[in-house]
Amino acid sequence: MHLSLASLAKPILYGYFRSSCSWRVRIAFALKGIEYDQVPVNLIQDGGQQHTKQFESVNPMKQVPAVKIDGITLCQSLAVIQYIDETRPGPRLLPADPKTRAQVRMISDLIASGIQPVQNLSVLQKKGSEKEQWAQHFINQGFQALEPILKQTAGKYCVGDEISMADTCLVPQVYNAERFKVDLEQFPTIKRLNQTLLEMEAFKVSHPSRQPDTPPELLA
Amino acid sequence: MHLSLASLAKPILYGYFRSSCSWRVRIAFALKGIEYDQVPVNLIQDGGQQHTKQFESVNPMKQVPAVKIDGITLCQSLAVIQYIDETRPGPRLLPADPKTRAQVRMISDLIASGIQPVQNLSVLQKKGSEKEQWAQHFINQGFQALEPILKQTAGKYCVGDEISMADTCLVPQVYNAERFKVDLEQFPTIKRLNQTLLEMEAFKVSHPSRQPDTPPELLA
Repeated sequence: MHLSLASLAKPILYGYFRSSCSWRVRIAFALKGIEYDQVPVNLIQDGGQQHTKQFESVNPMKQVPAVKIDGITLCQSLAVIQYIDETRPGPRLLPADPKTRAQVRMISDLIASGIQPVQNLSVLQKKGSEKEQWAQHFINQGFQALEPILKQTAGKYCVGDEISMADTCLVPQVYNAERFKVDLEQFPTIKRLNQTLLEMEAFKVSHPSRQPDTPPELLA
Repeated sequence: MHLSLASLAKPILYGYFRSSCSWRVRIAFALKGIEYDQVPVNLIQDGGQQHTKQFESVNPMKQVPAVKIDGITLCQSLAVIQYIDETRPGPRLLPADPKTRAQVRMISDLIASGIQPVQNLSVLQKKGSEKEQWAQHFINQGFQALEPILKQTAGKYCVGDEISMADTCLVPQVYNAERFKVDLEQFPTIKRLNQTLLEMEAFKVSHPSRQPDTPPELLA
């Protein structure tokens, strides 16, 4: 087997401590036990470092996360997580059974396509003063759908008793919900899963309060 | 091998002729040569049939598409397409090589998470009169990123010379771009790929102008 230099290098994650999509990838790296380097991209400072020419050449979408791995650059968190899962040992983040995999992808996409994009920074910046109300509305609406689905699929984790990509999506979305003061008491399954997952080491070390670019006043 | 009654039944697609996410799934069914039944869900009539209790029990997210297949109900178009791909013969919609798969997923997610959700019906309904301008802004921004990525990955199709899930996402998104009067001349790769794909039978039979619920005045 021929290993190129690129594939021997540690992956590089371009991320931001508070970006929920970056956190998904950090959780996946931690669950798989993969060491990586972080390059912080401050989404607020200087009008947003994601808009620099330098970062645009990494990800033309001007969003985090982006990952350099095995000689390629990938953006879109779920594409990154599935690539890691397919190429690295460690716990599977997508289950072997096709129906169960489909449920994991459905829940992941419900969050990654159905909730997060509508409350992300670039959309909120266009909303101006109604920001919090807008984010709250869409997270709430998404959780109304997610709760009955999780009630059916969840065991100890989002889908049965095995950790999966769905869990890497859930916890960062709950973190956003809390920032925008969504009332979690309406969603007992989401709340219970989030609490269980936050106890796990992989979710702790990847938490926004413990990153190289976390501002001192937010450090845990 | 034990085949349940459910798995012998044709899949049922709950969709809407003009929904770009429904169209993705129709393309995938057509590419794989899978017969299916359609249940139209009119997103406009009666305040939107997706809001009925009956449909909410199919998809709590109150969005199309939803698919009943092999005894389970799936929503989220990319989860559906990958399930079909993993369980049905016919051309692979995800390539075998992990890096190429990752590129297909990255492009698919860039559209499915990065562009479509911000210009979908429920978001536009909250925008009121600035609808067209809002949709145009976000599609344009997404295509600015997609164009240089596709320039690198594309051959005859979005990723190389094999049709993939990325192509099922591209064409419906271009259709939306045209509805919202985005100037496609800025995006020569996107425009070229779209033209090539629209020539294929699977894209023709699944087109919004040829569905059971297409209004007579829009029929091709």
